[in-house]
Order: sequence, then structure tokens, then C-alpha cells
Amino acid sequence: MRVLVTGGTGFIGRRLVKALLQRGRLPDALGREQEITQLCVSDVAEPPAPLPADPRIETAYGDFSLEGAAADLVTEDTGAVFHLAAIVSGQAEQEFDLGMRINLDGTRRLLEACRALPSPARLVFSSSVAAYGGDMPDVIEDATPATPQTSYGSQKVGSEYLISDYSRKGFVDGRSLRLPTIVVRAGKPNAAASSFASGIIREPLQGEEAICPVRAETGVWVLSPRAVVDCFLHAATLPAEAWGMNRTVALPGMTVTVGDMVAALAEVGGAQVASRVRFEPDPFIERIVYGWPSRFSVHRAAGMGFKADDGFKGIIEAFIQDDLGGHVAA
Amino acid sequence: MRVLVTGGTGFIGRRLVKALLQRGRLPDALGREQEITQLCVSDVAEPPAPLPADPRIETAYGDFSLEGAAADLVTEDTGAVFHLAAIVSGQAEQEFDLGMRINLDGTRRLLEACRALPSPARLVFSSSVAAYGGDMPDVIEDATPATPQTSYGSQKVGSEYLISDYSRKGFVDGRSLRLPTIVVRAGKPNAAASSFASGIIREPLQGEEAICPVRAETGVWVLSPRAVVDCFLHAATLPAEAWGMNRTVALPGMTVTVGDMVAALAEVGGAQVASRVRFEPDPFIERIVYGWPSRFSVHRAAGMGFKADDGFKGIIEAFIQDDLGGHVAA
Repeated sequence: MRVLVTGGTGFIGRRLVKALLQRGRLPDALGREQEITQLCVSDVAEPPAPLPADPRIETAYGDFSLEGAAADLVTEDTGAVFHLAAIVSGQAEQEFDLGMRINLDGTRRLLEACRALPSPARLVFSSSVAAYGGDMPDVIEDATPATPQTSYGSQKVGSEYLISDYSRKGFVDGRSLRLPTIVVRAGKPNAAASSFASGIIREPLQGEEAICPVRAETGVWVLSPRAVVDCFLHAATLPAEAWGMNRTVALPGMTVTVGDMVAALAEVGGAQVASRVRFEPDPFIERIVYGWPSRFSVHRAAGMGFKADDGFKGIIEAFIQDDLGGHVAA
Repeated sequence: MRVLVTGGTGFIGRRLVKALLQRGRLPDALGREQEITQLCVSDVAEPPAPLPADPRIETAYGDFSLEGAAADLVTEDTGAVFHLAAIVSGQAEQEFDLGMRINLDGTRRLLEACRALPSPARLVFSSSVAAYGGDMPDVIEDATPATPQTSYGSQKVGSEYLISDYSRKGFVDGRSLRLPTIVVRAGKPNAAASSFASGIIREPLQGEEAICPVRAETGVWVLSPRAVVDCFLHAATLPAEAWGMNRTVALPGMTVTVGDMVAALAEVGGAQVASRVRFEPDPFIERIVYGWPSRFSVHRAAGMGFKADDGFKGIIEAFIQDDLGGHVAA
């Protein structure tokens, strides 16, 4: 069976590709475990760091959302698609048309390409808690309606509805996952308002100072890179009946305050490491971050077998192991 | 100010056009009442019955969803758009691509045309209770999430999210109304599963027998043609602040059982008229109708000043007055 991962060279995409190669098999749409004979990694451009050397990997660099591109990516033997490619929230807000084209039209073209397959493929879609916003309850539940207040969030929700209807029609076997904030992201800080949530762990562990632009009591709904990859795999292995009439699920996560995060950092790395976090509230970032939901009481995902992390200390330890080669700058 | 009504020759469209001509004015996006100098009635084809003879009316027959068509309809002096054009539920289910093109892409093209205006237009969108479905609570509330189980419903909900985001971005000043089942529709029975809800009133009042395919205890969430036109006008006159961060509202309505409807028919038209309703349960229709929500506890619309009907007797009396010229076949 051939598997396609869009956005496959991104931070989560790379890990998912690795995990898929390791797993080696996935169920097809009829639930029969099939060997992954080919894994197509699609992304907008060749990644700076090379992908694993594996004969099953096939690369496709270019814009998947362009006319005809999805049809080239979703070849007849494609049994599963992981759709991670997206224009991120800040950019989708500034470049509205680009966000619409990639995040909404791109999903639709991918769905149309799946619809043309001889038998329906499983499609796992990377949606987001950006689905929530505006007039929200204090605690987000499974039944809380999506009220996005960003174009990114709207495009994700619009894609979820497309995936639900294409699934109901039998054109695809789709599953949408609303991802919490993924922490700890490796690499450099970026322009995302949530960048600090990884930065306050990542930088101090490497001997650098990190500025935290929000107050210590600020809550964040988080999931680790390891856990989210497990969730992607789990989503692809669940039978269609497990989803029933609702093809979208809010992934489990954990609410941690920034203060909790720094305390866990001190426990794992020592007081010296934790002292490298400097609090400098930034009203602009605060306004954005306080608009995000941080408290969730979602149970559907857990009932379906999706798992969150055990604790924030474990997230830091996994980051040190996976991304810092076990080394901490004490 | 120029006003555009898509689907303007349909059952509700015609009434809305008449009401707009009668009203003569509408607030512009800045809330200043402006004279309606031109009223563009767009629909797919010329209607069988002529539109009112009024110098303000301009007609545009053709497919509004085709490339470039929306830009021709939304001319620079357009201050308000009522978007009623749609492929109805049964047809959108059978002709998926047609439904997507008209109901989703068409809305987007209309929004893009509005975005090109020198100042944002108000846009009132005809959405539907088809937004609800599947795993619903027993009673639909304002906060009940949209879980459509038809392509029509999905396309309506997708359009709502587009309208919300285009409004948030300031590209348009949009308002989406989720319409209950509109009863009593004039004219002939059609293939809609809800056709009986009008038919059991309309036909007996004209001396004809009507077959009711669902049981007397079946509930329906209804709004009259008069009331829905008032809701459209009201939606266009509310200031943007009244909508806040949520551009979608479930219109008020009233839950009546089919038994209540026939009892009201007997009160208004007499026992002889009501005896023309024959109950012949049809399992196919029953299955569809029982999947629709019939009990609502929505308060937001009323708080915003939208009004439902006073009672079902009044709905029948208005139908007799508006559509039967006051005549009942006793």
C-alpha cells in the first residue's frame, strides 16, 4: 500500500514519516493490515536536512494545491493520506488568499483526488484548536461549537466539514484531529504567538535565555510531538465505525500554566536552567494568547483510545532525548 | 443604494423583493438609511409569473455561480445582498458537484465580488436547520454545534464559516440565518421530504385531498413566509455590533406536531376541510423527517429582535389571505 504525507518535511511531518516507516504497516479502508510499500513525502520544497534513507520513500516537492497536483500525488495504489500541509495561522491571517488556496482549496483538491480512487482511502487531517475562539465557554467540551476567530481556524473548520461530507458520501474515509499546541517544538523560535511555549523549554536547555511574553499563570493546552504522532497513527488504524457520524475529534491534551512548565523545567534541568526564563509581558502577545482556549474537558478522544502525555516532565525528558541527543546545558 | 437578491424569483425571494420595494429603504453598512434606487433580481431563469412592474427592478437571469457572474451582479453601488439562491437539499444530495458549485463556490464568488466593493456591503444569507443532524441533543440550543448529515447542510454551514471570516476581515458585513421549515409554501407539492408540511394545509383549503406520510405526533419546527421575510429585513437592518463575533443565528420558530397543524386547519377552515388530510405513513419519508430536529430552545434570535409567528392558526389565515385570495374551498 502507498501512503501519502503532505507537509511531510515539517516538524511533525518528519516524525510521522519516521514512525510510519518504523511501523511498516497500516490498515486499508477495509481494515486489513497492509505493508507500506511506498511512502510519498510531499512538501513545498526540499528540506534542509535529508529525509531518512529508505527505499520506500518517494519525494514530491511543489505546491500540492495547484490544479492537477493532488491527482499526481494520490495515485491509484494510495491507501492512506496524512494531510498536514498548511499555511500557519499568522501567515494565513496576513495573506488571506494564500491561506484560502492552500488550507481550504488544497484540502478540497486532495479530497477530489481521493474521490477518484477505485476504493476509498483513509485520510487523517491535521486540524487545530484554532477552531475555537470568540465567545467560548470557560471550558471547551466535545460539544462546544467551532467559532474560529482567525482565517486559519476558519479554513481548518471548513476543511473538517468537507472531510465529513466526503466521508458520509463514501468518497473518502476521513478523520480530522484538532491538535492542541504542540510542545516542545525543536528548532528556532518563529513568528507564531505560541512560539514562547516551546521556547521557554528549548532555549534554556541549550544554555540560552528565553523571554516569556505572558504571565506565569497563563494556561496552555498542550500535547507533545511524540504523543501527536501516536495520535495520527491511531487515527489511521481506527475502524470507520469508531467515528460514527462525527469525523472530527478534539485530541486529548493537558492544561499547564507557564509557571508549571518552568517548574517542571527546574525539576528536570535544575534551577540554573530554569532561571534562564525571563518574564517580560508583551501586551500584543498576551491579547492573542488569552483569546485561546486553555481549559478542556474532552472525553470522546480518550474513549476512542487517543492518549495524551503523562505529565509535563515527561514531555521535557522526551525532548531532551529526541532533539538534544540527551544533552542539557547545565 | 442598489440591492441584490439572488434566488429572487423563488417562493421566498419574490416575497422579499416585494417587501423591499414596499419598504423602499435600507441602512447601508454605516447604518445610514438609504433609498433603494435599484433592486437587482437574480435567478437562474425568467420566472413563469411576471415580477412586480416597478422601475427600480432590474433582472439578471443566469447562473450567478459561474466565473465572473458575481462580479457583474455586485456592481459598485451595491449596498446590500440577500443571498437566497441554492440547489435544494434533495438535488444537492443526488448531484453532489452541482450542489458544491452553487451552494458553496457560488457563495464564495459572491463574497469575493463583495470584497471588491469600495465599502463593505451587508449580506444576508439564507442558511438552514439542515445545519443540524446526526448525533444531536433532544433540544437544539443556540450553542448546539452544526453537524449536518446532508451535502446541502454541509454546504450551508461551510458558507456560514466563509461569511463569518469574510465579515471578521471586513470584506463584507455578513449575517447568516438558519431558517426553519417554511410553512405554508404556495404552489404545487415538490420532491422535498418536507413537502407534506405545506401540502396538508394548502391542498385541503383548495378542496383537494392531501396525503400525510408521517404520524400525527411528528413535530416540525416552522416559520411562516411572512415571518421569514420580516426576519430577512430585520437581519439587514441590525447594526454589526448586534452580531458581535457570531455572524450566524438560528431563527426563532415554533414546534408544531402534524396533529396540531390539522387541528388548526379544522379551526380555521372547518372539519370538512381538515378531513381531506389522509394519514398514510411512508417509511422512507418518516426516516428522513424523524432525522430532523423539531425541538428548539433558541433565544439569541429573539434577543436580537427576530420574531416568530404568534400561532399556527395565524399562519393558515395569512396563507389564505396572501396566496388563496381569501378563498377557502369549504
